[in-house]
Amino acid sequence: MDLYGKDLICTQEWEIEELVEVLDLAAKMKRDRFSPDWTSLLAHKTFFMFFYNPSVRTRQSFECAATELGGHAQFLEPKAMRLKTATTAGETVEDAAQVMSRYAHGLGIRILEDKIPYYGAGDELIREYAYWCTIPVISMAHDKFHPCQGLADLMGWSEWYGKGPGYPADPSVLYGKKLLVTWAHGALARSWCSVQEALLIGSRFGMDVTLAYPEGFDLDPEVIAWTEENCAENGRTFEIVHDPVAGYAGAHVVYSRHWMSPEAYKDGEFLKQQEIEKALRYPQWICDAEKMARTDNAIFTHPMPIDRGHEVTDDVASGPRSCIYDVAENRLHVQKAIMALTMGNL
Amino acid sequence: MDLYGKDLICTQEWEIEELVEVLDLAAKMKRDRFSPDWTSLLAHKTFFMFFYNPSVRTRQSFECAATELGGHAQFLEPKAMRLKTATTAGETVEDAAQVMSRYAHGLGIRILEDKIPYYGAGDELIREYAYWCTIPVISMAHDKFHPCQGLADLMGWSEWYGKGPGYPADPSVLYGKKLLVTWAHGALARSWCSVQEALLIGSRFGMDVTLAYPEGFDLDPEVIAWTEENCAENGRTFEIVHDPVAGYAGAHVVYSRHWMSPEAYKDGEFLKQQEIEKALRYPQWICDAEKMARTDNAIFTHPMPIDRGHEVTDDVASGPRSCIYDVAENRLHVQKAIMALTMGNL
Amino acid sequence: MDLYGKDLICTQEWEIEELVEVLDLAAKMKRDRFSPDWTSLLAHKTFFMFFYNPSVRTRQSFECAATELGGHAQFLEPKAMRLKTATTAGETVEDAAQVMSRYAHGLGIRILEDKIPYYGAGDELIREYAYWCTIPVISMAHDKFHPCQGLADLMGWSEWYGKGPGYPADPSVLYGKKLLVTWAHGALARSWCSVQEALLIGSRFGMDVTLAYPEGFDLDPEVIAWTEENCAENGRTFEIVHDPVAGYAGAHVVYSRHWMSPEAYKDGEFLKQQEIEKALRYPQWICDAEKMARTDNAIFTHPMPIDRGHEVTDDVASGPRSCIYDVAENRLHVQKAIMALTMGNL
Repeated sequence: MDLYGKDLICTQEWEIEELVEVLDLAAKMKRDRFSPDWTSLLAHKTFFMFFYNPSVRTRQSFECAATELGGHAQFLEPKAMRLKTATTAGETVEDAAQVMSRYAHGLGIRILEDKIPYYGAGDELIREYAYWCTIPVISMAHDKFHPCQGLADLMGWSEWYGKGPGYPADPSVLYGKKLLVTWAHGALARSWCSVQEALLIGSRFGMDVTLAYPEGFDLDPEVIAWTEENCAENGRTFEIVHDPVAGYAGAHVVYSRHWMSPEAYKDGEFLKQQEIEKALRYPQWICDAEKMARTDNAIFTHPMPIDRGHEVTDDVASGPRSCIYDVAENRLHVQKAIMALTMGNL
Repeated sequence: MDLYGKDLICTQEWEIEELVEVLDLAAKMKRDRFSPDWTSLLAHKTFFMFFYNPSVRTRQSFECAATELGGHAQFLEPKAMRLKTATTAGETVEDAAQVMSRYAHGLGIRILEDKIPYYGAGDELIREYAYWCTIPVISMAHDKFHPCQGLADLMGWSEWYGKGPGYPADPSVLYGKKLLVTWAHGALARSWCSVQEALLIGSRFGMDVTLAYPEGFDLDPEVIAWTEENCAENGRTFEIVHDPVAGYAGAHVVYSRHWMSPEAYKDGEFLKQQEIEKALRYPQWICDAEKMARTDNAIFTHPMPIDRGHEVTDDVASGPRSCIYDVAENRLHVQKAIMALTMGNL
Repeated sequence: MDLYGKDLICTQEWEIEELVEVLDLAAKMKRDRFSPDWTSLLAHKTFFMFFYNPSVRTRQSFECAATELGGHAQFLEPKAMRLKTATTAGETVEDAAQVMSRYAHGLGIRILEDKIPYYGAGDELIREYAYWCTIPVISMAHDKFHPCQGLADLMGWSEWYGKGPGYPADPSVLYGKKLLVTWAHGALARSWCSVQEALLIGSRFGMDVTLAYPEGFDLDPEVIAWTEENCAENGRTFEIVHDPVAGYAGAHVVYSRHWMSPEAYKDGEFLKQQEIEKALRYPQWICDAEKMARTDNAIFTHPMPIDRGHEVTDDVASGPRSCIYDVAENRLHVQKAIMALTMGNL
């Protein structure tokens, strides 16, 4: 298997074997973080990070990943790059992408809800870059998907249901486990990318999936269809419920996070404030100890940053079954593995 | 002595022996800047730099320091980090700090007067990070202290009173020398951090200390009390004068710098313009050749950037007894030593 | 020949032999990009990049260059640096430059039309830094010159008229070839730096030079005089035409790019919008296939970013005789060579 040069825009577009290859290498890298086996894989090489949106963990973990592989990640903000847009003169993606391919060995792009005129526009842009680039393009979270988060989730859940955090992640331990992905109220109008990626990768690896949200907060129908197909192929179940409590029954992994409604865009504008106001009308949609008691001793997972007090109570987020910091740490390891496999010469 | 993992928020909180250890290593690093003895100490490792406030020298010298130790310093601006504040939803320090501890090997924080609602708030924040982080937290200047500047000052003064600039710094040569820290007028309303750190570290190492300022420009009473104690323990003198000239008599080190008054905050607001107007009413408070003639051939020191023409005249700042560039250079060396000792595996 | 410590502000100030030395090393570096012969030349050393203006290619290529030489480029924005300006208190260039010389091994500066009060002010500033710095100062494009672009142009044209792109660049193949530098209309009011550098370096290496522009878009008379002298010394021709078509006849290299008029500044203000409106009145000034047909099978060159549809048509810019991506790539190689020669210990 040779992943050199391969784009990563959504895990659904990679084979199971390819995703397992990433997890295997990530586990080895986690076990021996600064082994000379990988500290020179990207020696003297550059990874461009294009942040249309700012970020906490993504920037930190990608820049650390490049450093730990011996390379360097450049932090670039397209607003300073004189790029052509619908309304301004500037450089085309065709030109920018072809030149960047001469300088760097990989390109990461982050573009989220408030930097685009409609859902899907970020995905289109990242694919336009991938079309023109001869180097691999990695999504660092965009409006539709967040593949690195999905892989970090999978790695973390596998550790917790395997020999424990820190042990090699074998995702087969998740087969037949129940994943609850539940909407939560919140004061930040958030993208669909992380939860959609979680639905896809959880279902891909044989989990039973329950999706819970209030009426009016549907996700992308195409992602729902893929999730259904993934479950069907694995002989597992997929269900949608519109109740804040019911989905918790028997769950093994609880993923509680706010996301915006499909009405978030109007005439090319992102209606952030309206979305926040709408979301705050559902205070019963919060993950708390009482709901967690209905699960099969589930772990609590979240891609962070957490909106504590809205998405989850402090006692659950900081409790003994919270895997959030392990999952966050795994961002580093899976990204190192992805970069090594697609940009290094393994 | 093992300083691995130790926070550095104020030199007063470190033992004399620990500070000397930093100076000793810094001197060796200055003597042979790119020796393989240290160019791999932080190989492939990351230091996070959190700049709530922008900076010239601090950012340059810390990023150089990490590079020279084989590692990488990430330049991070919290305004782009979706952190929780008193008025906005976002990530807590608890969460941010614990995740960062999984990625990086050290965290530097800079937060100054105009980014906080009251004096002391920056110190509280940095200590909150230190509480939650499992990696060392280093102040890169905050409202109360500036330990790296203090160590660079001490190293520079010791070089000038020792064998000369560039020679190993032995702070014992400063014992019994007179340090004048004097307020100066200026067009920038400046923090107390550098001068307070200078008072503490100068008194700690056996200098006689004179503090001069116009009525109404008191510093932090706690810092004054510590300085008095330090002097008493060393059998040296501490005095405060409110005259722009008197303190120069017999001084060996003159530190002339503007600082804001205790009235700089009102209702959570930093009254920068009011402070500048107030300061400019004291044109006689400037370090010039006439005043320097009253000293015992003192050296002129300043943490830079200098507000020339307000804090000091050009002939003194650029004159033969000015140690400003040596002190500035020492920021690099002491920070390399601090990072090596607290984050490397020495 | 020892170029250690030499500033590069304009290629006209370097000897032909020195420029050839850069091209020779750049060609070797391009042929074997990650050879251990150069990946440690700047090991653990820092290059400061001062961006008064943002940039696409310049930042990317300089930061890559430092990384590929084993060093690190710090991205610095002077607006965050509390520097003294005509109207605000702050640090002088004297102080900033002398301290930076203690930390870094080279300083790049980029300052363009909209950050200065009049044409030439950027050149003055960069020379003030060069005066005070003990480390080499490299222009990363300023109002008058863009030496790294000029060297990348020369390398690219030499490759195309030599054995082909990717082969060693021998600029003697350009002797007697005709270079057309033509103004183009455009929606961005652009600096004179790239075209002026192209005129100088093309004429320096024995090209016949034709400069074409509408009345009212004169360039710097001093640069024109130098270009004339260069051509005279080489026994070649220099002409200026004010026709959008005539200059194409028999050309071997066509450089079509917009530039602002000499009326772009008034009372210290850069009249960007007025310049754009003026430029857009000349739609016939565009490089297209019809005009290119009049040349001697010329290559199309441009420093990028291209304003497609204004400066050049898509079929020419993306056509088989376009050398734009090769020239852009060469920015990396010539900058690596410049940094190695002026900052490394070759």
